[in-house]
Amino acid sequence: LGEFKIEEVAEALEAIVGEKNTIYEREKLEDYLKDETYPKLRLKPVADIVVVKPSNAEEVSRILKFANERGIPVFPRGGGTGLVGGAVPTRKGIVLTTERMKGIEVDRENLMAVVEAGVTLEELIKAADEAGLFFPLHPGDETAHTGGLVATNAGGVRAVKYGVMRNYVKGLEVVLPTGEILKLGGKLQKNNTGYDLMDLIIGSEGTLAIITKVILKLHPKPGASATLIVPYDDRSTAVNSVPKILQSGIIPLAIEYVERDLMEKAAKHIGEEWPVKEGSCYLLIVIVGENRDQILYESQKIAEVCQQSGSLEILFAEPKHEQEKILRIRSAALPVLETEKMVDGLDTVVPPASIGEFIDKVNEIAEKFNTYFVVAGHAGDGNMHVCIMEEEGISLEEIAEIRHEIYRAALELGGTISAEHGIGGVRLESLPLCLSRKEINLMKQIKRVFDPNNILNPGKKVPP
Amino acid sequence: LGEFKIEEVAEALEAIVGEKNTIYEREKLEDYLKDETYPKLRLKPVADIVVVKPSNAEEVSRILKFANERGIPVFPRGGGTGLVGGAVPTRKGIVLTTERMKGIEVDRENLMAVVEAGVTLEELIKAADEAGLFFPLHPGDETAHTGGLVATNAGGVRAVKYGVMRNYVKGLEVVLPTGEILKLGGKLQKNNTGYDLMDLIIGSEGTLAIITKVILKLHPKPGASATLIVPYDDRSTAVNSVPKILQSGIIPLAIEYVERDLMEKAAKHIGEEWPVKEGSCYLLIVIVGENRDQILYESQKIAEVCQQSGSLEILFAEPKHEQEKILRIRSAALPVLETEKMVDGLDTVVPPASIGEFIDKVNEIAEKFNTYFVVAGHAGDGNMHVCIMEEEGISLEEIAEIRHEIYRAALELGGTISAEHGIGGVRLESLPLCLSRKEINLMKQIKRVFDPNNILNPGKKVPP
Repeated sequence: LGEFKIEEVAEALEAIVGEKNTIYEREKLEDYLKDETYPKLRLKPVADIVVVKPSNAEEVSRILKFANERGIPVFPRGGGTGLVGGAVPTRKGIVLTTERMKGIEVDRENLMAVVEAGVTLEELIKAADEAGLFFPLHPGDETAHTGGLVATNAGGVRAVKYGVMRNYVKGLEVVLPTGEILKLGGKLQKNNTGYDLMDLIIGSEGTLAIITKVILKLHPKPGASATLIVPYDDRSTAVNSVPKILQSGIIPLAIEYVERDLMEKAAKHIGEEWPVKEGSCYLLIVIVGENRDQILYESQKIAEVCQQSGSLEILFAEPKHEQEKILRIRSAALPVLETEKMVDGLDTVVPPASIGEFIDKVNEIAEKFNTYFVVAGHAGDGNMHVCIMEEEGISLEEIAEIRHEIYRAALELGGTISAEHGIGGVRLESLPLCLSRKEINLMKQIKRVFDPNNILNPGKKVPP
Repeated sequence: LGEFKIEEVAEALEAIVGEKNTIYEREKLEDYLKDETYPKLRLKPVADIVVVKPSNAEEVSRILKFANERGIPVFPRGGGTGLVGGAVPTRKGIVLTTERMKGIEVDRENLMAVVEAGVTLEELIKAADEAGLFFPLHPGDETAHTGGLVATNAGGVRAVKYGVMRNYVKGLEVVLPTGEILKLGGKLQKNNTGYDLMDLIIGSEGTLAIITKVILKLHPKPGASATLIVPYDDRSTAVNSVPKILQSGIIPLAIEYVERDLMEKAAKHIGEEWPVKEGSCYLLIVIVGENRDQILYESQKIAEVCQQSGSLEILFAEPKHEQEKILRIRSAALPVLETEKMVDGLDTVVPPASIGEFIDKVNEIAEKFNTYFVVAGHAGDGNMHVCIMEEEGISLEEIAEIRHEIYRAALELGGTISAEHGIGGVRLESLPLCLSRKEINLMKQIKRVFDPNNILNPGKKVPP
């Protein structure tokens, strides 16, 4: 990486995108220095940066060519809703935000959408809906940007039936750190022309290329849907019924695991009331289908499976506003957790059928360390977020040990340490737990192929 | 690549896998020198090879380490059902077949299967079925091997609803040309730990690594299914109704386009009768669902769309044996075509909604060159196989021109030149039509990262 003065950089960027799309006044930078990583894990950002807001791939290309020639680090940024510090500038350089790229064009004929990187999840869901189509995935915060959703291969709720972001992406426009604009894939269901560069860039967290445009597959709008809240008396019984649901032949859109205490707080936080009084934990199950008959049939079948697996009385929500209220309360869980004394929220995943065994181990670990964890997550994907809480007398060493034991538990069951949040700056040191040296080495070499001068999200942690 | 005597190579391989798993007698090699590429396109194989049959990843690793040290080309081979010469040895070296790796283990709890590379498609379908589960995809020839299906990212019929091979693969065991054994992914629905090496290897046609084991997602067995044969008077009307079906909200498992002449010959070829008398071409639509009510509802809805788009009287097949007969006749189309005077079968794909426009252009090209094409394909995926026939008076130059014009037609509609067959040795010279120089350059550099000595499927064409 090169030597440069930040004022020179600002001047060069202004020449490309104009003065009003270049920010370097310290007091205006605040919003560009952080993401939604849990406060206690956050990387210390460098404030010696210029924020640049290009409006299209050509401008991104000019910026990257300039940065590449001069060896200036570039930190790509979407909505800043990441949880692992992937968008945080940790070196003097450029923060490149795609927030001005807002184009969205729904192609009803092909059931696809061409979406620019700066379109938010909320805008994407709305545009699909208005065109009579459906974007099923819901990776948490609706202020997330499409570019970031693809760069992190986001998951969230509603990934059980149709998969994660990767499974929706059919084409990408990206700009390489060396400035070339590539158009990968297309509005195509099949494409076998050479190595799959598109999937390599999906989930590469802004280290291989900057995503400027995405072709996303949409679904026909389901004719009917329902949300079931299935209460249980304990964690183990609840999660053990998840594989039984999956084996029943019905594949719900979402199977979420949540706990009563958190749901009640989340409901209160947004001025609602959690509608179930029984049980200490719940599965939230969303079913979508062609028509009401199908939904009723599938709900009935799932209800039977749950009852046979020890559930209490199930709440069946069919009116749209009731279903939306439940999703809204679920989505409010994260902000509530952050106001609690949460130290870390892990992102482990195990094979769906091993989720019961995993939760038993997690409970044992809590007991061993004489602490408690809040647990919530995408049970149908085997993806449980175990939240480590700050308690009186718990030391930093113990927290590190707890994290390590939970990782080990997931790995021993054939799982891994990150299902959907990614690696970013925060999980980098844990990566060797789940990848071999050769794998990491291949990844480093691939990085060099795309980014020979290591300018794109070079990511080195700055000492605090 | 190095200098070596084939006898030495044989001796070294015998030391690894034993004498009976090493073949180098010329008369026994015949089956290992070709694939199912259309006869007139076939690459000339080199007969100066040793065939080696390792039984597990460790043996593959020892073979590759030896070959890598000595610079000996290795041609990985599955079932040999490829259509682009990807498995044909074109240099003196080793043919490595995974045919002895036959392990298959269905995990009902996780709805997945762990399948070794040599398991055939037929065996895979059967094993899933016997475990009460379902492997939906049907990429043509059932003698194909799982390793090859993954290496070529196979597609075929039944890709409309759930996608192609890539969408079924959750984990891979692979051996790198440098000998390291990697285990990528797992029985996981979500996994965001670094670059997606797994998807890079899927579809890399034996050039980056040898696939020894695959974790595949299975589906619950559908409670009911139906096959519709929808006849039309002409190509254009038939294919134009495909996007309308996709927009109806129903997503069939398969939407195939076939023509009467070919279907009647295919039926005769296997001693059956094609059950429809009306129309000159057809859509074959397969619907799967949870129960009979759903199937009848969906069939009715699709039938309405087709009738409104100009179809003739629809045949509705519900009994299992009737549906199987139709699929059997469809599958017999390729062998029938091969006995005809077929020169080339293209593998273009366009956005599904552009398929009508594409077929109109194809018809114009036929007229311009005063010839005819047999057309069959996976209409629901936009993937049509246009077959160029050898006619009296047609020259080799004209055939090349026809191919080029059909490729251009697909590319102009946002499509590409290979949907599912891949590139192999046969389509390599056409690759620059659809990929930029930078993309090809990135791919070459990635190849070097995985295979620094270029031993794996080096693929150079040998002059005939």
